[in-house]
Amino acid sequence: MRVLLDVMGGDRPPEELVKGGVLMGRRTGTDIVFAGDSALIERALDGHRLKSEGQFSILPSSQVVHMDDSPVTAVREKKASSLVLGLEALKEKAVDAFVSPGNTGAIVAGSVFTLGRIPGIPRPGIMAALPTVPGEDLYVIDVGANSDSTPEQLLHFALMGATYARDVVGIPRPTLGLLSIGSEAGKGNKMIGKAFSLLESSTLPFVGNVEAHRVLVDRSVDVVVCDGFVGNIFLKSVEGGVSAVAQLLRRTIRGRVIAMLGALLMSGSIARVRGTMSYRRRGGAPLLGVDGVVVIAHGRSDAMAIGSALDVACHQVKANLLDRFSDGVAGWETDGG
Amino acid sequence: MRVLLDVMGGDRPPEELVKGGVLMGRRTGTDIVFAGDSALIERALDGHRLKSEGQFSILPSSQVVHMDDSPVTAVREKKASSLVLGLEALKEKAVDAFVSPGNTGAIVAGSVFTLGRIPGIPRPGIMAALPTVPGEDLYVIDVGANSDSTPEQLLHFALMGATYARDVVGIPRPTLGLLSIGSEAGKGNKMIGKAFSLLESSTLPFVGNVEAHRVLVDRSVDVVVCDGFVGNIFLKSVEGGVSAVAQLLRRTIRGRVIAMLGALLMSGSIARVRGTMSYRRRGGAPLLGVDGVVVIAHGRSDAMAIGSALDVACHQVKANLLDRFSDGVAGWETDGG
Repeated sequence: MRVLLDVMGGDRPPEELVKGGVLMGRRTGTDIVFAGDSALIERALDGHRLKSEGQFSILPSSQVVHMDDSPVTAVREKKASSLVLGLEALKEKAVDAFVSPGNTGAIVAGSVFTLGRIPGIPRPGIMAALPTVPGEDLYVIDVGANSDSTPEQLLHFALMGATYARDVVGIPRPTLGLLSIGSEAGKGNKMIGKAFSLLESSTLPFVGNVEAHRVLVDRSVDVVVCDGFVGNIFLKSVEGGVSAVAQLLRRTIRGRVIAMLGALLMSGSIARVRGTMSYRRRGGAPLLGVDGVVVIAHGRSDAMAIGSALDVACHQVKANLLDRFSDGVAGWETDGG
Repeated sequence: MRVLLDVMGGDRPPEELVKGGVLMGRRTGTDIVFAGDSALIERALDGHRLKSEGQFSILPSSQVVHMDDSPVTAVREKKASSLVLGLEALKEKAVDAFVSPGNTGAIVAGSVFTLGRIPGIPRPGIMAALPTVPGEDLYVIDVGANSDSTPEQLLHFALMGATYARDVVGIPRPTLGLLSIGSEAGKGNKMIGKAFSLLESSTLPFVGNVEAHRVLVDRSVDVVVCDGFVGNIFLKSVEGGVSAVAQLLRRTIRGRVIAMLGALLMSGSIARVRGTMSYRRRGGAPLLGVDGVVVIAHGRSDAMAIGSALDVACHQVKANLLDRFSDGVAGWETDGG
């Protein structure tokens, strides 16, 4: 398997991202193609006593899509960027998957433009994995590929989420919930009301509405469906709540000797929870619904997070996920569609 | 001042809510009218060696609006409930404010139906106060009075939020942010785009979009404006993130003697953070935009939380807030409108 890694558009320097690719490649035997400034990548590979040949190769690019670039303009005008050239390599099947920690909007726009959509799925969705109290990750789709969605699009997100949970994650009978502001049928806004009816009358394994304050604690479903605006607010609010508590606790402890000693004794447990909550272990959010395996890594990704995003891409390639979507909602069945 | 407390519709028994009213009344000298089953309330007052006369009186009711009642049906059909009778007492100015830990939808529907709306404000909004890392509360409107809102309604929520922050909270020059999925202008869905333009061209102190993962940590604005569906998801997601971390930490510690000792030494700090995050200290969410002071307490409110909700109601009565809204968006000025 051959995975392309865009090392230019993330928040961290390309050297760090090359390191992530090299470590993951050595661990799994995956071929990695680094897209970016070839001199920088050569130098980084040299640091690992590697040459750009065989398992680790380079796709040279001369432009960079930055985090604050306008997505559509960037994709149209930066044809020599690692992002656009990388997606073209995927389109031409020179690689099996594309991974980037770059500008999310540009990755979505570039993927739709270059790879095209899967028949029957008019809009792609980004799926994120969230840690939960019971332990298994919770899958949420869409977390921001689109800012305005229709009830029909939510049905497609549900199809893609359930199929991913079954065929990539390996949950034989995954369940779906709709993110809303009350668990009863009919609670929520008009869009949710219509999406509820569509899901209820489909063959998809829909169990009803779920609420944000409960679902991370009880993990009552495997996949949460929402529109990209709400999903993005959900993700960021959870992150905000978690970091607010962490910072409040740190500030309260500071200067109190006994409390600081307590924190020291608890540090193993705190590190364990931080590991569970960390995006570094679930560094990749697949963009589902475009005709190719595209994984969006966190902008802040370090070598470890990049390794985990590359793993996500490989799992998806192995599962042959794209073929599974083409049966559409009607063809969905539990235990292999 | 005379505040009515609906003691029937909350999750806790009426005795607990009466206790909250008695303690707050004794602390502040406020007259409290308890709406509910008179025998139950008499008995609860008796436990505090009080009779239903003078400062503490009873508005007897024979029906109860339950948490799972359909709001509109409950308000129409349960005319003898503490909720409906209490709102009627407010309408007739027999009391200055109404506080209830009951069914939120029924309180909103009953308030609109009984009290009516303020001219120029077509839809009321619920405002919640959230704890932040810097210390001052963050005010969020709307957190669920409406599930579908228009950009114009967001402008009214902004007006009410800014006026409340200035005249009730006492922030001389409050600032407003719009909850979205990117801080740049134009980021977000179509509704947010239109609301952004309306806010930008108004005289309201609008500073731009804010993001959920940052605003609890940096508190870059005083008031966050959003539609009720998104605001409710925001609140519940923060709650979900906080409780997931707390539960993960508790589970990780269990059985590890050193970590448990650490937690013991840290318990003062943990209690302090829990106090900061607790809804019990900010137990009341005002329903703004109806023609009367209505405060919705958390359904789980205990005596302490009820006391804090009664305080919120008193502050609002003192500030004469309703008169301030009637100038509308155009009449809004910093330092007293």
